[in-house]
Amino acid sequence: MESNHSPFDMNRRVMIAGMAWLPALSGALLPTSSEGQTTSDVPLASWNDGSAKQAILDFVRATTDQGSAKFVPPEGRIAAFDQDGTLWVEHPIYSQVVYCLDRVPAVVEKDPKLKNVEPFKTVLSGNREAVAKLSLRELEKILVATLTGMSVDDFEGEAKKWLTNAKDTRWKRPYTELIYQPMLEVMQYLRVNGFKTYIVTGGGQDFVRVYSNQVYGIPVEQVVGTAGGTKFGYHKNGTPFLTKEPRLLLNDDKAGKPEGIHLMIGRRPNAAFGNSGGDREMLEYTGAGDGARLMMLVLHDDGQREYAYGPAQGLPDSKVGTFSQALYDEAKKKGWTVISMKNDWKRIFAFDKKA
Amino acid sequence: MESNHSPFDMNRRVMIAGMAWLPALSGALLPTSSEGQTTSDVPLASWNDGSAKQAILDFVRATTDQGSAKFVPPEGRIAAFDQDGTLWVEHPIYSQVVYCLDRVPAVVEKDPKLKNVEPFKTVLSGNREAVAKLSLRELEKILVATLTGMSVDDFEGEAKKWLTNAKDTRWKRPYTELIYQPMLEVMQYLRVNGFKTYIVTGGGQDFVRVYSNQVYGIPVEQVVGTAGGTKFGYHKNGTPFLTKEPRLLLNDDKAGKPEGIHLMIGRRPNAAFGNSGGDREMLEYTGAGDGARLMMLVLHDDGQREYAYGPAQGLPDSKVGTFSQALYDEAKKKGWTVISMKNDWKRIFAFDKKA
Repeated sequence: MESNHSPFDMNRRVMIAGMAWLPALSGALLPTSSEGQTTSDVPLASWNDGSAKQAILDFVRATTDQGSAKFVPPEGRIAAFDQDGTLWVEHPIYSQVVYCLDRVPAVVEKDPKLKNVEPFKTVLSGNREAVAKLSLRELEKILVATLTGMSVDDFEGEAKKWLTNAKDTRWKRPYTELIYQPMLEVMQYLRVNGFKTYIVTGGGQDFVRVYSNQVYGIPVEQVVGTAGGTKFGYHKNGTPFLTKEPRLLLNDDKAGKPEGIHLMIGRRPNAAFGNSGGDREMLEYTGAGDGARLMMLVLHDDGQREYAYGPAQGLPDSKVGTFSQALYDEAKKKGWTVISMKNDWKRIFAFDKKA
Repeated sequence: MESNHSPFDMNRRVMIAGMAWLPALSGALLPTSSEGQTTSDVPLASWNDGSAKQAILDFVRATTDQGSAKFVPPEGRIAAFDQDGTLWVEHPIYSQVVYCLDRVPAVVEKDPKLKNVEPFKTVLSGNREAVAKLSLRELEKILVATLTGMSVDDFEGEAKKWLTNAKDTRWKRPYTELIYQPMLEVMQYLRVNGFKTYIVTGGGQDFVRVYSNQVYGIPVEQVVGTAGGTKFGYHKNGTPFLTKEPRLLLNDDKAGKPEGIHLMIGRRPNAAFGNSGGDREMLEYTGAGDGARLMMLVLHDDGQREYAYGPAQGLPDSKVGTFSQALYDEAKKKGWTVISMKNDWKRIFAFDKKA
């Protein structure tokens, strides 16, 4: 197991609750490395043979073979993917929260009186242990200050710039390279087979839209996430624009995921992928439909190549990772497939050596 | 001009405000006539030659010709259509409001104490003049009672049944046949040219989704409308389901249209079509983008084949139709194209004789 000394090692539930405030903006292409888009003629090339890979192959065959009793016409094929911990690294802290903390100096520069006001003062101090101890309410203040109050276009510009320059502390790479290559292959395999792939994330809808097309090949309109309201208004010259408001429209986590799916997609997915208790209701909702169903949970059991965390691995639940024993039991009972990162994946990232 | 003696001749602003409560559900195919889907090898076959038709042709050429300075790659092509009065008949009353009034007896049957409670008592009386005089608050009560409190699936089933059986009083046809054939041709022409077509309606998102695919060829996820929240829960047997709640998430009218577009689509349309003040902000927002832009407004000036209403025709604004003189002036000033139903359209409906 990877030891964890991150200064931002906050309680996951705090993170999730805080994510409720993450708002939104117009997506665009991000000029990042194209490694994440690596394709292969062999479907699921980074997957070891086993029950997880087989479940994907069986599901696609059942839904796309016209002779199958469970055939689904192409226009009915929908697959939903959680993001944090399912498509990219979430441990020890959500990348979007790093973005918010990194934006604090710019916010204070614009509004200097915040300099001596908590929680901004603590963030500016650089005392990482103190930052890690910020309360939920304090964290929300940071999210609101860094994710709202600006135009949709300004937010997009700032987020794009950050994503281009910021690097994680362990791999020293842009966050947009910390994508699970096997999951990219699943998305691509499903798309090649006529599925419309959606991200359904507790993270900010506008934040994820900034890179979804470049990183996942998913257009902005297929990103469902926690979303705040915007307010239509006019610049002095009469040009209209939208301002991001601290008003929560959709908390796209737990029960909010099927609710968000209904709002944004309007029909039940045939397949859903997650990794935590935040995805439970989405998988239940997906599983309750007719015909072939595929529900999968990524288990973080690879402390060497990524991280190992969560009670299902006998590890404490106090940090990130709410893949609880109860969720594990529900998965077993309902026939959901648990993906072992350690055993099912030949490699984790596109930049890993090929197996 | 068509005289108007409808019992449901309510104030349009009342209707629009009331629509704020209209919620949502999973779309599906509706077994209606396929007349509305009539296609033709000739693009815009039901359009007379003129500036309106030419504006559409010019826009498509500018955005799809690779040699054009205003070329837009296919994945960037988005067109947004208002529904009521732009794609189908809205006069003298929105079809969805007829649905709600028609549902009142069933609601009262389930909850008999409502029988003697206003506004249900008035609706049950069959006194159409009294119904037409219901206040906004009373109308909202009817919308809430008939559009919320049931499961998403139950609502879809009821709405589908109604759409199959109900007929309008003038043409004696299902409402889903009162679609403007020339607008179907525009949508199809845009789709053939790589545009993704969206409905952006003040009407209920869930209601429109019931027939959007069958009637307009627009999948449910491309319907943006006034939307209420849903609540995730479980049946006694453990099966999850969503209940429609009387909680407004998106009032997709006026400024709510660009806000809804940002929430649901995440990028600015290249083209937008409307017919009233409820569409003004959407057209302004669309027009504020770079490159080729197409903003069009349908003018209801054909009292013989459809209806003529609105101040831009010198008619009063007190009923439906908020195509005000101010909107007309803004259109002229900003180069938006006004479509004259009378002069630009060879036929209005698919069931009209071909010209």
